[in-house]
Amino acid sequence: MLKQIDGGITASKGFCAASTAAGIKYQNRADMAMVYSEVPCKAAGTFTTNIVKAAPVLWDQKIVETSEFAQAVVINAGIANACTGSEGFRCCEETALAAGKLLNIPADAVLVASTGVIGKQVPVDRIVAGTKVMATLLNNSIEAGNAAAKAIMTTDTKEKEIAVSFMASGVEVRVGGMCKGSGMIHPNMCTMLAFITTDINISKELLSAALKEDVIDTFNMISVDGDTSTNDTAILLANGMAGNPMIVLKDEDYLNFTKALRYVTEYLSKRLAEDGEGATKLFEVKVVGAVSKDQAVRLSKSIVTSSLVKTALYGNDANWGRILCAMGYSGVTFDPERVDLYIECPGFERLLLVSDSVATDYSEEAASKILSAKEVTATVNVKMGNAVATAWGCDLTYDYIKINADYRS
Amino acid sequence: MLKQIDGGITASKGFCAASTAAGIKYQNRADMAMVYSEVPCKAAGTFTTNIVKAAPVLWDQKIVETSEFAQAVVINAGIANACTGSEGFRCCEETALAAGKLLNIPADAVLVASTGVIGKQVPVDRIVAGTKVMATLLNNSIEAGNAAAKAIMTTDTKEKEIAVSFMASGVEVRVGGMCKGSGMIHPNMCTMLAFITTDINISKELLSAALKEDVIDTFNMISVDGDTSTNDTAILLANGMAGNPMIVLKDEDYLNFTKALRYVTEYLSKRLAEDGEGATKLFEVKVVGAVSKDQAVRLSKSIVTSSLVKTALYGNDANWGRILCAMGYSGVTFDPERVDLYIECPGFERLLLVSDSVATDYSEEAASKILSAKEVTATVNVKMGNAVATAWGCDLTYDYIKINADYRS
Repeated sequence: MLKQIDGGITASKGFCAASTAAGIKYQNRADMAMVYSEVPCKAAGTFTTNIVKAAPVLWDQKIVETSEFAQAVVINAGIANACTGSEGFRCCEETALAAGKLLNIPADAVLVASTGVIGKQVPVDRIVAGTKVMATLLNNSIEAGNAAAKAIMTTDTKEKEIAVSFMASGVEVRVGGMCKGSGMIHPNMCTMLAFITTDINISKELLSAALKEDVIDTFNMISVDGDTSTNDTAILLANGMAGNPMIVLKDEDYLNFTKALRYVTEYLSKRLAEDGEGATKLFEVKVVGAVSKDQAVRLSKSIVTSSLVKTALYGNDANWGRILCAMGYSGVTFDPERVDLYIECPGFERLLLVSDSVATDYSEEAASKILSAKEVTATVNVKMGNAVATAWGCDLTYDYIKINADYRS
Repeated sequence: MLKQIDGGITASKGFCAASTAAGIKYQNRADMAMVYSEVPCKAAGTFTTNIVKAAPVLWDQKIVETSEFAQAVVINAGIANACTGSEGFRCCEETALAAGKLLNIPADAVLVASTGVIGKQVPVDRIVAGTKVMATLLNNSIEAGNAAAKAIMTTDTKEKEIAVSFMASGVEVRVGGMCKGSGMIHPNMCTMLAFITTDINISKELLSAALKEDVIDTFNMISVDGDTSTNDTAILLANGMAGNPMIVLKDEDYLNFTKALRYVTEYLSKRLAEDGEGATKLFEVKVVGAVSKDQAVRLSKSIVTSSLVKTALYGNDANWGRILCAMGYSGVTFDPERVDLYIECPGFERLLLVSDSVATDYSEEAASKILSAKEVTATVNVKMGNAVATAWGCDLTYDYIKINADYRS
């Protein structure tokens, strides 16, 4: 049985974390984190589809595809190491070399990740100095994992972590994760930065398959501002220390693992969306009755991305015409005369706003109450088929402008 | 020789306008306008590609495609008559019937257009009453045209009109236009509402061809918020009263007409972009060196639509990494290592920020000065071919949130 447990990335057996204030860009706060497994891990990763890829994305793609194993991740916040040319790539190499030497593992077992402003060079000396400090602090406590989740934040207002456990062939298996992301969030392959550890024993092929399948419905379904980052990275490390018989088939153990993984990534996805820059609430959009999954995905993402829908949500205004408008320009073919739309939130019954594309005589007061909740769900039924999709986003507020008109300074 | 003249839609010979306060939604201001030609016109139109089309769009599409001629347009601001079902379409019919009777023209020679909130029914009685009032006020003065341009505004802060004249086969021809639009502006076929009159004598086929060609580079290249409206409409009426020999070939007269049309529509497009909801400046994005026109269009629109680019512009912050990021997720293939980027504004020399995708040692102070101008141009060179495109947008500010979190009330 799947159950949520305390902690994040260090909840999985054999995983340690550390963090430090390396002075990359921020003052008076930790801005680097390290994740380390006592034994080599199989690694899976999904990365941004932005054609402008940050240096760490290029580095990690190579490691995930060609290295025999991975054993550590070095992360910094403040500078994204994107649009930094060959100097930026050399920074990744030097970081991995330094970490490898300190941890006594090959440099090509070290993943790196960066987040922050684009176009600035990372101060390599500080990264290397920070790596040295962290190598001496590695610790498998819940606190160390939590501190790492805090260290990787940029404009995030809170750390995002979770851990679960379940049984596989009679032994307990754990999956823990952390992520960061608040602006430039419209992942296309995976989200800003997410790191998931597990002690499950599984083949690399199935590990990769599980992550690839999973991000389609989780990290790829969130949007804060429609901007797909240059740095999106999701890394999944499995060290096998749970001791279950290795999973090599899509059997029951695999199925239970994918459920645990989904629990972790869906939780993290919602936390990313609700902590969108300036956001005051989580917005969940379900599309049902679509002809195909692709159609449902495109409709739900078009709604959750619309600036006009997001500002109406901020104003607690049931301006549902903007939702139909956003569906209409999504590129999906549906019958514009047959759309049903209802909204709901925890503690309130769902309210039908639109039936066959025309307003019901709903109470504006009730609608406004639902929309003022911290978590609002809108469900759209296009009544054409059985495919469904869920996307997550947030409202668009004054603070989004404030944060982004003044991000570099 | 093309020259700008005073006035807007009534500058073209034989065109009259009227406006009135019909109390559709706003108080104490004109909210209806009428355009009328003394003689029948050939009509061309382009309309929203949003699958959710407002009733007036469906009505006008039919008129433009099947009516022998058009002679009047009745426009209201405040309610969009979109998502209003069969009742909404009946409202268009009744408006056209009433106007036709009053003006002694067939109902199918009357175009209608609406802009405002989606999902509310238009009060037909008020529309018909307003139509009756306007039929008695029709006037071909510059003032009447200007008042009409004001009456069709919603969240616009100023009216948008222009007129030009040129010579065709020895006679003076005039082209005048007005438009409105401030939010939900990301036209795909044409913009919110634009009306262009001309007294040129031209075949219907060439009139349609001229408009169709034109909107690709003008109205379709602006974006305020990425939301393609349900009501986008551009109407071009030609009544032939200039007396030039009818244009039936793509000859010199046709070429001069397309230049005049372009002058009018490009001017109106820029005015729409700079008057985007909450905007403080016009943002022009030129992409040069692309392999194809389509590639240049997609790159420039991706940049001009990015919330992060728009907020940086508001903050006068040369955060150019966001521009490269927006190019990277546009879906266009280009060499991410070879991008040059410079910015400029009236009165300042252009400033190279990025060379081969890496920052130059430009002065942040000079960059900030340029970005604080009322009109800022960014030019991106992808150095792959000879295709170019220009898109227009604006910055994203607190006032956009203010206006849209509270639009319906």
